[in-house]
Amino acid sequence: MRNWKLTLAYDGTAFAGWQVQPGLRTIQGELHAAIERILGREWHPVPLPQGSGRTDAGVHALGQVASVALAAPIPGENLHRALNRTLPPAIRILAIEPVAADFHARHSAIAKTYEYRIFRGSLCSPFLAPYANHCTWKLNLDALHQAAAQVVGEHDFTSLAATDADLAARLESDAEQVAPSNIRTIFSSNWSELPDDLLVYRVRGNGFLHHMVRNLVGTMLDIARGQFPAGSMAAILQARSRSAAGPTAPARGLFLHSVEYPRELPQGLDNRSNAD
Amino acid sequence: MRNWKLTLAYDGTAFAGWQVQPGLRTIQGELHAAIERILGREWHPVPLPQGSGRTDAGVHALGQVASVALAAPIPGENLHRALNRTLPPAIRILAIEPVAADFHARHSAIAKTYEYRIFRGSLCSPFLAPYANHCTWKLNLDALHQAAAQVVGEHDFTSLAATDADLAARLESDAEQVAPSNIRTIFSSNWSELPDDLLVYRVRGNGFLHHMVRNLVGTMLDIARGQFPAGSMAAILQARSRSAAGPTAPARGLFLHSVEYPRELPQGLDNRSNAD
Repeated sequence: MRNWKLTLAYDGTAFAGWQVQPGLRTIQGELHAAIERILGREWHPVPLPQGSGRTDAGVHALGQVASVALAAPIPGENLHRALNRTLPPAIRILAIEPVAADFHARHSAIAKTYEYRIFRGSLCSPFLAPYANHCTWKLNLDALHQAAAQVVGEHDFTSLAATDADLAARLESDAEQVAPSNIRTIFSSNWSELPDDLLVYRVRGNGFLHHMVRNLVGTMLDIARGQFPAGSMAAILQARSRSAAGPTAPARGLFLHSVEYPRELPQGLDNRSNAD
Repeated sequence: MRNWKLTLAYDGTAFAGWQVQPGLRTIQGELHAAIERILGREWHPVPLPQGSGRTDAGVHALGQVASVALAAPIPGENLHRALNRTLPPAIRILAIEPVAADFHARHSAIAKTYEYRIFRGSLCSPFLAPYANHCTWKLNLDALHQAAAQVVGEHDFTSLAATDADLAARLESDAEQVAPSNIRTIFSSNWSELPDDLLVYRVRGNGFLHHMVRNLVGTMLDIARGQFPAGSMAAILQARSRSAAGPTAPARGLFLHSVEYPRELPQGLDNRSNAD
């Protein structure tokens, strides 16, 4: 039995999110089916690959991580090549490496980084549309930067958590057998203006609640266009109520950028850590 | 009655090509439905917008041109805004302008430019896959450049025309009531190496047969990887037989870049002409 860590990128446009669902095309389902197909019947059943977290329908990934323990004695290089030949072009395995038996893509993660892209020009190219939120409001960028800064640190993010309590409870239940907490720590949170009318938000934290990044972006945009007063993000968090915050920004602008694990694991994270 | 010229870009991935077809999502069909919806029942029926040419399923456009004569007295700016609000984000109207009554997007065109993108790296990003042909063969670039140069000028392109005779006849029938000819003139034809392992072919000519650019690219790639001798493109054209040439390259790498019209028309083509 060998435990594998897979790093993958995907265009989420055509998928019903990460998590396997009967009758729907999902990333986890495609990955699982590809592994079963590659290994053949003698190694069935293959366990479901576990992701660092679920991404919703339409959300993309530049560096999602999954783990799966396989009994088949297949060399990593062969598995890597075979997966990219078997998976649809919208899902690519970027790296594959053997890891300790206790490595779990979700439980072992110590930090995650998300990016959210906004296009501010008047006409959004058809080739950008699936990967950005087209936002033509006039935005107060000072208020936007201030709102991003106000979420850094340890906070109760109840105001920015999905309100579907059953769903939230189910999503939390795998991760923690203790009562779910809405407290998370944000290490960095900032907006950058890029060429071609792009505005990109990058947030790195020790964990994220369901819909948290999209609710955060939707709320920051509402602050930047004057729906909430500038500087009100702190009060919105303190309210600990979803109704105190703004709307959920569309899935298509969101990218899971990367997932980090402790240095003990053979992962060469130095470059990524320095980049923050 | 006012005649309109529309310039549009589209991501062809999710469409069954340009031409309207019962039960299928096509660019022409979406555009027609959007115009009818905007103008309302009192102006029905609206004629089908005519494209400069049909693009196949999966082929993209950066600057397709369509013409349509409308009886409704709607200002161009309003029609432009309303179309981009009504059309799916995968289709964008870049420009709209009133033109002479005898302007026809197809019959009036004097030149067209296509681009074909090839990705040569080992791992093709999921975000590039719908817009490039992933080609991992070792390519002889000298042979590739030579093949591109050999198609410049007036030639009988029967070797590179779609073999489906009925389809070809049907496609030609709108354009010419005379017997269809496979003679076309290519003004420029060249490959460029771009950063990030991209290889881009650009071809400009007075017209293109069905599948001609994709058959040309498939044949040039076969020459560059040694399936045909270097320098054999001239002989392949002279054979005037589809079986003398290589395969049809996949639709996803192909972009209709632009369509040119005579200068008499109010279109400001100077920039585009200089760029060639």
